[in-house]
Amino acid sequence: MSKYITYAQAGVGIDAGDEAVDRMRAYVTSTYGPRVIDNKDGFAGLFRLDYDEKLFKKNYRKPVLVGCTDGVGSKVQVASMLRKYDTVGIDLVAMSVNDMLVQGAEPLFFLDYLAVHKLEPKIIAQMVKGVAQGCRLADCALLGGETAEMPGTYAQDDFDMAGFAVGIVEREKIITGENVRKGDVLLGLSSSGLHSNGYALARHVCFKVAKLEITDTLDELDGQMLGNVLLEPTRIYVKPIIRLLSHYKVKRVVHGMAHITGGGLEGNVPRMLPRNCDAVIKSDSWARHKIFDFLQKTGPVEQGEMFKVFNMGIGYVLIVAEDFAESIAAQLTSYGEKVYRIGRVTSGSGKVVLK
Amino acid sequence: MSKYITYAQAGVGIDAGDEAVDRMRAYVTSTYGPRVIDNKDGFAGLFRLDYDEKLFKKNYRKPVLVGCTDGVGSKVQVASMLRKYDTVGIDLVAMSVNDMLVQGAEPLFFLDYLAVHKLEPKIIAQMVKGVAQGCRLADCALLGGETAEMPGTYAQDDFDMAGFAVGIVEREKIITGENVRKGDVLLGLSSSGLHSNGYALARHVCFKVAKLEITDTLDELDGQMLGNVLLEPTRIYVKPIIRLLSHYKVKRVVHGMAHITGGGLEGNVPRMLPRNCDAVIKSDSWARHKIFDFLQKTGPVEQGEMFKVFNMGIGYVLIVAEDFAESIAAQLTSYGEKVYRIGRVTSGSGKVVLK
Repeated sequence: MSKYITYAQAGVGIDAGDEAVDRMRAYVTSTYGPRVIDNKDGFAGLFRLDYDEKLFKKNYRKPVLVGCTDGVGSKVQVASMLRKYDTVGIDLVAMSVNDMLVQGAEPLFFLDYLAVHKLEPKIIAQMVKGVAQGCRLADCALLGGETAEMPGTYAQDDFDMAGFAVGIVEREKIITGENVRKGDVLLGLSSSGLHSNGYALARHVCFKVAKLEITDTLDELDGQMLGNVLLEPTRIYVKPIIRLLSHYKVKRVVHGMAHITGGGLEGNVPRMLPRNCDAVIKSDSWARHKIFDFLQKTGPVEQGEMFKVFNMGIGYVLIVAEDFAESIAAQLTSYGEKVYRIGRVTSGSGKVVLK
Repeated sequence: MSKYITYAQAGVGIDAGDEAVDRMRAYVTSTYGPRVIDNKDGFAGLFRLDYDEKLFKKNYRKPVLVGCTDGVGSKVQVASMLRKYDTVGIDLVAMSVNDMLVQGAEPLFFLDYLAVHKLEPKIIAQMVKGVAQGCRLADCALLGGETAEMPGTYAQDDFDMAGFAVGIVEREKIITGENVRKGDVLLGLSSSGLHSNGYALARHVCFKVAKLEITDTLDELDGQMLGNVLLEPTRIYVKPIIRLLSHYKVKRVVHGMAHITGGGLEGNVPRMLPRNCDAVIKSDSWARHKIFDFLQKTGPVEQGEMFKVFNMGIGYVLIVAEDFAESIAAQLTSYGEKVYRIGRVTSGSGKVVLK
C-alpha cells in the first residue's frame, strides 16, 4: 500500500467521470441541430446564432438574448426514492424553457449542472437522457454540462440539478404584458400534474402525514403508483406556443403569458399584469388532476394554500385579445394542448382574484 | 393552532426568498451595462445582443454563442466552515468565464443557481455579492439567478452553487488550437492559489490527515490563516486576455489557450494540442504558491498526483507563435499578470510532457 494520498482516496473518481461522459454522448448529440459547432474536447459549447447560408437564413434584426436558470426543487428526492432518474431532466429543461417562452423567446440551447454524492456513470447517463429528451421536446440543443461529485455536500443517493437555457427573441416581439387590457381573456393550458413545484409540501403530506410508501398504489389516484404520479414530468409548452406566435406575424394578439410555478396562479399571473388590471380567474373552470384533491384532503391543506403552492392543474396561462380567444384556443387544441378559458382581465390593481 | 399544513411548516419559506431578492438587487444591478433590458418582475433575463445605435455599434458578422457551466466543487464547504460567503461567487464566475475565454469568446452575461438548506437572506445576499463582483471582474452582466431552499437535500449550513456563462465570438476568430505548431511557446499566467479544483484532496489533507482547524495560522503559509488561503478567489483572466486578443486584429498569434482546472496542466493543455504535437513543460519554471508545497508535504501526496489534481501555480496557459512570445508576455505583464515562459511545443502525440 502506498503511503501517498490520491484523489480517489479523498473520495473523487476521475475515471468514473470519463465513463459517464462516454455514456451520455449519444443522448447529448441527439439534441444537436446544424447550428451546433462540434467542439468535443473543447472548453465550451459553441452555437451559431445565425446562418449565413441562404437556405437557412433567419437573421434577427435586433436580437435579444434571453437567459433563464432553475432547478427542480425537491422533486429530485422523489426520483431518488423511486430510483428512477431518466425523467427529472425533462422537468429541469421545462422549468427554464417555459419561463423564457413567456417573453416570446424561442429556446436555442441548454446546459445542465448535475451534482451527486458519488458519480455512478449509469445513473448520470439516465439523468442526461432525461435532459436530452427535454431538449428535444423544447427544440433546443444540449450544448454542455457539468457533473460534480461532492461526497461531502450530498448524502448517499442524494443529488441536485440546475439548468440554464438561452433563447432569442426579436426586440419588437418581446412580450412584456404591457398590452394586457380590460376585457382580455385568460386561456389556461393543462399541466401534466405537480410539475416541479410544491414538493416539500407534497412529500410532507404523503410521507410524514399519511406515512405512505413511494411504491403504494392508491385508489384516490385511480390505482396509480404514488411515485409515478409524483414524478410525472413537467409539460414543455415550447412547440405549441412558438407555433402559435409565429402564426400571428403582424397582429399582436397574445398580450401576456405566465408559466405557473412556485406561487401558483396568484404569484405568477400578476407578473404579466399592468398595475391597473386584475385577472379574475374562475377556479372551477378546468379539470383538476386527482393528485391535487388527494393532497388537499390528506394534509389537510387549505384551499388558499393549495393555490399558492401548486399549479392546481393549469401549467401555463395566455392573456389574449378577446376577439382572438376562440381561434387561439382552437389552434392550441389542434397542437395537442388541453385549453381552458379560465378568466378575464378587469380593472383592478395588478392582482389575481380567484373565484 | 391551525390543523392545516402550510408550506412554511413543510420547511420552505417564501417570505425569506423575497427578502433575499431585495437584499441582492443592488449587487445584481451593479453588473448591468446598457445592453441589459430592465425586466425586474419578468420570467427571464433579457440582453441585447447588439446595438443599433451608431455610437455603440459592434455588429458581429457571423456571431457564435458560447455557453459554459460549472460549479466550484467542494470549495463551498470551506466557505461554510469559515462562514465567509462573499468570495465563492467570484470562483463561480471564474470557472465558467475562464473556460469560454479559451475559445476566444468574450463573456456577455452570467446566471447563478444557489441551493441551500435554509434560505437566510443575509447569507444569500453575501453569496450574490461575490457573484456580482466576479461578473464585474469578467465584464459581464449578472442577468438572473435562482435560489433554491432544499432542507431535505442540503444539511444544515451546507449549500451548493452552479454558474452559467454566455459569451460571443466572431466565427473566424474562434480559437481551436488547430494552429498550434512545433516551436510555439507556452506562456503560463500565475494562479491566485488553488482556484476551484482539488478541494476534496486539500480538505482531506488539512482536516483529516493534519487535523488542522480552519482558523489555524501556519508558519508554512507565512503565518496566514489556513481558511483564508484555501478560500482565495480564483483569478479571472477575461480582461487581460480580451485586451490582448483585440490588440492583434488581423494576425493570429495566439494559437491556443487552456484554463487549468481539474486534471491540471496534463489534463487541460492537451485539449488545445493537435495530435502530432506535445507540449513540453518545465515544472520549475515558475514560482509555486506555498499552499501547494504544504499540501504535498503534509499528505504526503506524490508530485505526479499533485500535478493531476491542482493547477500548481499556473491558472491559464497561452500557446503563442514564437516570434510574438516576448511581446505577448510583456503586454500581459503590463496588464497586471504574472507571466512565465513555461515550455515549448514539440513533435509528439498530443500530450503534455512535464520536465
